Amino acid sequence: MLELTTYLKERRERVDQFIDRHLPPPAERPAVLHEAMRYSTLAGGKRIRPILCTAAAEAVGGTFESALLPAAAIELLHTYTLIHDDLPCMDDDELRRGRPTCHVQFGEANAVLAGDALLTLAFEWISETPAPSRYLPTQLALELAHASGSRGVIAGQVEDLAGEGRELALEDLEFIHRRKTATLLRAAVRIGCIAGGGSPEELDALTQYGADIGLAFQIADDILNVTSNAETMGKPVGNDEKRKKSTYVRIHGLEKAKGVAHELIDQAVGQLATLSGDREPLTALAHYIVQRQN
Amino acid sequence: MLELTTYLKERRERVDQFIDRHLPPPAERPAVLHEAMRYSTLAGGKRIRPILCTAAAEAVGGTFESALLPAAAIELLHTYTLIHDDLPCMDDDELRRGRPTCHVQFGEANAVLAGDALLTLAFEWISETPAPSRYLPTQLALELAHASGSRGVIAGQVEDLAGEGRELALEDLEFIHRRKTATLLRAAVRIGCIAGGGSPEELDALTQYGADIGLAFQIADDILNVTSNAETMGKPVGNDEKRKKSTYVRIHGLEKAKGVAHELIDQAVGQLATLSGDREPLTALAHYIVQRQN
Repeated sequence: MLELTTYLKERRERVDQFIDRHLPPPAERPAVLHEAMRYSTLAGGKRIRPILCTAAAEAVGGTFESALLPAAAIELLHTYTLIHDDLPCMDDDELRRGRPTCHVQFGEANAVLAGDALLTLAFEWISETPAPSRYLPTQLALELAHASGSRGVIAGQVEDLAGEGRELALEDLEFIHRRKTATLLRAAVRIGCIAGGGSPEELDALTQYGADIGLAFQIADDILNVTSNAETMGKPVGNDEKRKKSTYVRIHGLEKAKGVAHELIDQAVGQLATLSGDREPLTALAHYIVQRQN
Repeated sequence: MLELTTYLKERRERVDQFIDRHLPPPAERPAVLHEAMRYSTLAGGKRIRPILCTAAAEAVGGTFESALLPAAAIELLHTYTLIHDDLPCMDDDELRRGRPTCHVQFGEANAVLAGDALLTLAFEWISETPAPSRYLPTQLALELAHASGSRGVIAGQVEDLAGEGRELALEDLEFIHRRKTATLLRAAVRIGCIAGGGSPEELDALTQYGADIGLAFQIADDILNVTSNAETMGKPVGNDEKRKKSTYVRIHGLEKAKGVAHELIDQAVGQLATLSGDREPLTALAHYIVQRQN
């Protein structure tokens, strides 16, 4: 039986070590840029995306190492979205993971550029190894670009900003959630499956798994924004309410939102039945996503 | 004998058509994002980078078409750097190519995100076709990432901003110029050579060509900032002087700067002697780079 807390800690440390060793050194010119990149990336994140990515590789019979570089690339990309979302012209947040946000610490121009540099480095890292021969060799970068571009993460952020201060229909809220959060979680699982040499059937099953846990993850975030406190979250809570942001909790109420999240997780776990490798971590991770406290 | 004006116009039109057809349609949700991406990309740029890229492919015996997709990707990437450089927290420019800059037209958040989306789409496009088999299949994306990341274009922008308002040593100025401008021009030539199937020896020669014309291009920009007018340039001139930015012209004086630029061009053209394909366009482009009026 998998001890999830130990598993998460061990994986997080391996991912953190890898990222630490592979980021440009902080003293390299321009030092302020490389410091800002490291400051935001090595800020003690949960590393959910890289852990999902490497777990997906292992669930199809691949190794942890086969997916580590693309997994780290996904974390760089995720970090860039946080830096840019926090900017004064967007969510204007001053606290992230319990520390001043990148633009508070390094100035706005350096924060924009550190985000740009992490996005670029994500594509460098993910392009360092070609995909296994049953896929297009450039498939990993394509997956990352589709998920994070103007039809994925960025579409979600644009509509999220445009929707602030007014009531959104459920359909619009799902457009935002699917793109802003779910798409990259789904891509993390797909990229792990491809890097680990999974079959097309396994890729289909894991795509559905990734989409379900991705939406559940965002619903859980909405719930935490209401029920948690700033100390546990490492950032202000209750912001959604203050900004009159539409969330699952506002539309459905707390109990219904919890129910939807749990249904999605059950559905996700059901997709894992046919996989050829170790399914236990992905099963545990799916449950963790709706039970986490921050 | 190549008629350069006709050549540039014909190439520019083919590149523009390709980009226009391949960008997401302006009505696609989120419309404001896709409009902003198109607004800045299809703003009548000279398309120097994609034209250099396809000309490099032809100079090593490849076709125009073999390098068109990566060439267009380079132009997307260049456009993203312009959008972000123009932001209020950076150069705070309101006019670009004779029109309001992206953030003036669409708001600051949408400009940041349109830039992010173009950067992402550049890596999507360049990953759509693997490199010829004598190279790593993901080589084209790697080239683009190296040139545009925290050790390339972004390093140049960070140091350029940090250097405003104080006198820079020539060494620091060259650090900025090589990265901010020359690196991407060099990458355009390298990427075209690789996509066109050039040999390692041809790649070496074209790398040197690209580095030389890249530095000459930036010196020519500094000269134009002093000698041209806003109407011809489509943006304010004399800004460098107002901001006390260090430039080649400030350090060397106008005549010496012109001399350095012309020496670099002669050196660049000398590199073309051993190439197996049509060298005429690259020769003409090198001279054009220091003779252009905007």
